[in-house]
Order: sequence, then structure tokens, then C-alpha cells
Amino acid sequence: MEEADRSLLDAVAAGHIRSAARLITRVERDDPGVVPLLQALHRMGGRSKVVGVTGPPGAGKSTLINALVRHWRQAGLRVAVLAVDPSSPFSGGAVLGDRLRMMDHSGDDGVFIRSMASRGHLGGLSRATGDALTVLDAMPWDVVLIETVGVGQNETDIMRHAAVVLLLQTPMGGDDVQAAKAGINEIGDIFVVNKADHKEADRSVQMLAEMIALAQRLHSERSWKPPVLKTRATTGEGVAELATHIDRCFAAHAEGTPAALQRARTRMRFRVGEILRDMLDRRMRSQDGQWLEDLLDPVIARETDPYALAEKMLERAAT
Amino acid sequence: MEEADRSLLDAVAAGHIRSAARLITRVERDDPGVVPLLQALHRMGGRSKVVGVTGPPGAGKSTLINALVRHWRQAGLRVAVLAVDPSSPFSGGAVLGDRLRMMDHSGDDGVFIRSMASRGHLGGLSRATGDALTVLDAMPWDVVLIETVGVGQNETDIMRHAAVVLLLQTPMGGDDVQAAKAGINEIGDIFVVNKADHKEADRSVQMLAEMIALAQRLHSERSWKPPVLKTRATTGEGVAELATHIDRCFAAHAEGTPAALQRARTRMRFRVGEILRDMLDRRMRSQDGQWLEDLLDPVIARETDPYALAEKMLERAAT
Repeated sequence: MEEADRSLLDAVAAGHIRSAARLITRVERDDPGVVPLLQALHRMGGRSKVVGVTGPPGAGKSTLINALVRHWRQAGLRVAVLAVDPSSPFSGGAVLGDRLRMMDHSGDDGVFIRSMASRGHLGGLSRATGDALTVLDAMPWDVVLIETVGVGQNETDIMRHAAVVLLLQTPMGGDDVQAAKAGINEIGDIFVVNKADHKEADRSVQMLAEMIALAQRLHSERSWKPPVLKTRATTGEGVAELATHIDRCFAAHAEGTPAALQRARTRMRFRVGEILRDMLDRRMRSQDGQWLEDLLDPVIARETDPYALAEKMLERAAT
Repeated sequence: MEEADRSLLDAVAAGHIRSAARLITRVERDDPGVVPLLQALHRMGGRSKVVGVTGPPGAGKSTLINALVRHWRQAGLRVAVLAVDPSSPFSGGAVLGDRLRMMDHSGDDGVFIRSMASRGHLGGLSRATGDALTVLDAMPWDVVLIETVGVGQNETDIMRHAAVVLLLQTPMGGDDVQAAKAGINEIGDIFVVNKADHKEADRSVQMLAEMIALAQRLHSERSWKPPVLKTRATTGEGVAELATHIDRCFAAHAEGTPAALQRARTRMRFRVGEILRDMLDRRMRSQDGQWLEDLLDPVIARETDPYALAEKMLERAAT
């Protein structure tokens, strides 16, 4: 490793925000030269509690995150927030979002807020998010929050990088229930009905609790039973209790326990799978273009088939 | 190839709907034994015009597809519809949708309507959709329609299997404009503002036309300029004109022309890439599970890193 890279790593490990930001920008640009740095950062990492926050638009994610950050800051913790919006192909929105959000914590160097621009990333936004987390997790943050909008496949993939996932719900209609169902089985560790003052809030909590009970019966091997909490992010109501439950979820999966190893393996299997797919895509693209064109045409002419070509390409990628 | 498989292929080629349905079910179940059949079907295929239809919920896709199917049936064409809903993890909804939709064309054996259940498909719903299209395209359908809900990454991927893509718009608010922007640059060949009687319809047509003009300036190499049409699917208004534009788009990319080859290569490159990723995933899963567990733990313990493990796995997958 070169001298410049070595001092960049040292700066990141020491918590130098601009160095980290520059590195994340290189991740966003799919700069292949960043891989050896990420490899080194992974070995240095594991310093933070990585918490995911997702939920449908309008659930009050940003407000709740602001309130959580304020809570942790008052307890003396250092917090980074990585905001990922897969639905927006335009980075402009994300940058504006950062500016608006930063206002609450501006001048506080114990808080770092960063958006992932979602365009580009031929290898996938979730893989790039994993890389950005590798950078943040090698820094002296106590908590790293990942935020995504919505609860679709992209969001689920991104949340898989988090050790503990909060699933926010608005007092809900039909679509939300559907999202909650999918989320309960797949990703949620803690469910939060924000806007606790809404008339439907109690009914939502009740419905969620029932769905969780059902999911627990289907997955009797799970020792953690996701709680359903009510918050009012605008007033801070319920935020301290939420932070306590986050701590409890980490404690229930304390390092070294079988449950923790199980979860860590699931996360790592997913992360390696994403990297592997990305690696394959990169190599395909870096192959001599004409070689691929020459092979595509007989498939288009139906003289051979895409499965046979894929087999040939896999052999070539590994060599 | 076994005798049973050979006669299954013959049945599909002859247009036997139950055989095709059974084969698509095997595709949905990720049955690896189906691959040799798909390889043979690809060589037999290319019989249909494959048209994609996508757009946000509420744009009236199903009604418009019904109207288009009716139009083509009156012209004596045979039509298959493949409905893919990536947002629904529950196949129940899809099956019910089929039943509702079939009512309009029940008893007509020149129409086949099939939903892709979106759960499972570890290799990806879009790859499975490509496989189902390989089956349908080897049958004597004149048109195969693929329908997806929404205009996100999943839908964009699925639409890439179609030769011509219709992008439906509701008379629009902010979110639709965003979706339209993304769609214009990526996938739309024909834009349709359905609900032409809505007071905002003309304004939507105007906005879309402006965005398309902008996109055309950015992509001056494109010879096809996407038209913006108005329809009222409930009354059939504008449907014949839409069908004419679909024919025109196929004619503008007639087989053997450089534009057609360009588009076919783009589609095939994507298809092969999906198959390749799927192949890799399958092999990873079929590896001795303990082998992978043993390799994951040192990554979790940060003695090595996920990039190094991915490299090792790629080497092993190719052998």
C-alpha cells in the first residue's frame, strides 16, 4: 500500500471527517482503486453500533432520527448518519436533504450526516452502502445510523447491513399493513409507530403486535421478540424509551453469543454475495468489448443460447 | 434430452397452453432441470412481438392492457400477457388478479394471461421473467405483453426484456414527474397519458413532450423519438392509435437494421448478465455449506475481509 493511502487510513481511523467523506465519494464513483482501502478498513472496523431505520414516506423518519441523534449526543455519544434514497436517481435532492438536516446539528463535530447519491453504482446501491459503512465503522463513531425511504426490495437489501433495524410505521392504511407484513418477516427488530398522537396510532400498535406474534410463531427459533413502540418525534416523546430498546436489542445479541454469530453470518453472507456479483459485473465490463459483441450476435441469431454464453463468461471471469 | 422433455418442447411450440403454464411454474420454483429446456426454447423462439407496459399504480395499466388485447384479438392476433408485480411478496394477490382479468377474455383460447409470483426467485424476479418470456416467445403468440407495476429499479429491469416499452402516466403530480424523468432516459419507447379526460391530461402530455425533447438532445444517436399519446382505456379511445404506434416502433427497429441489432445486443447483454449472476448464486448455494461457514467466521472476526472471500468464491464457482 502506498504512503498516501496509508495516511488516509490513519486519518479515517482517527475520525477525520473530510478524509472519510472523500473516501465515500470514491466509493460512490465506483473507483476500483478503493478496494484495497476497504479491505484494510474492514479489518480495522467494528467500532460502531450500526442501526438501520426505514419505513414508508411520511412516517417521520428524518424527524425521529434527528431526535435520536439529539438523545445520543446528550449522552455523549458520537453519531454518523448515512442517508440512502434508492427512489431518487438525482443526487440534488439528497444534497439538499443533507443541508436541511444538518441545520439541527451544525457546528457539532460529534455528528456526521452523509447522503449516498443513488445514481451510478452499476454494482448496486446496496453494495456501495456496505462500502460506505465499512468506512464509517472504522471511525470512532459510537452509533452509525443508515436511513432508507420505503420498504421495498432495495430498502430491505440496504437494511441487511445494519445489526439492528427499526421499522417505522405511520398510523396505517392498507399499503402500510402490506409493507409491515413483509417487513416483520424479513427485517424489523423494533417497530415504531411515530405520530403517536394520531387517532389510529393505538389501533396500528395493536395490529403490529398481532402480526409480530404470528411471525414469532412461524419463527420459533428467534429469541428476540420485536417490541412495538410509540413515539412523537416532534416533541421527543418516547425517544429515550426507543434508545433503551435499541440498547436491549444489541445486548440480546451481544458479541460471542450464538444468536450474535448467527446474525453476523447472515449479514456477512449477504455482503460477500453483493461484492461477488459486483466483482463479476466489473470483470465482464472490463473484458475486451469486441469479444463480448462477437459472442452476443450468435445468441441473438438463436444459433446458441444465453445460458451457454453465461457459462463461457463465468469461466473467463475467474481466470 | 429425454423423450418426455422433447414432447414437452413440441407441445409448447404447438401452442399448448397447459404445457407452457407447467414450464413457467417450474421456472417460478427455480427448478434447475428447466435450464436445458430453456436453452432449446431460446433457439426455437423469436416468434412474438414482446411489448412491455409499466407505470405507477392507478395509471390504468390493466384496463389499457385489456383494451389493447381486445383490439388485437379483433385483428385476429393471438396475445399472451405476463403480469409481474415485484411489490407483492404474496402470490395470492397475483392469482386473484388473474381471475379478475381473465373474465374479459375467458373462453378465448387466443389469449393467455399469466402472473409471475414474485416470492422466491433467489436469482432475481427479472431473470425468472426472462425465462418465462423464453417459454412464451417459442409459442405461436403474435404479441407477448409484460406488465409491471411502478417505475422503480425492479420494474426497469423487467422492462429490459421487452423490445418495445410503453410507459403509462397518470395526469401527474410531483412523484410521477420524477418517475417519468427516470423512465424517459432509461426505458420508454411510447408514453401514454391514460385518463385523457382528466383536467390535467393536456398539461401532462405537454410536460412529457418537453422532457422527451430534452432527452433526445442528450441522446442524439437515437433515431426513435418516443411519441406521447392520450388514451381513455375505459372507453377504448386512442387505443387503435396506440396499437399503430407500437407497430411503427417495431417497424423502426425492423430485424436486420443497425438500430435493431443495437437494441437486441443491449437486451441480450442484460439477459446474459442476469443469468450469469443467477448461475453464480446457485453454485454458491450448492457448495458445501460448512465450507462457506468456515470461511465467513474469519471475515466476521476481521482476520480477513469480504473482498478477499469473494475472490476466493469466484475462483471456486468457475471450476
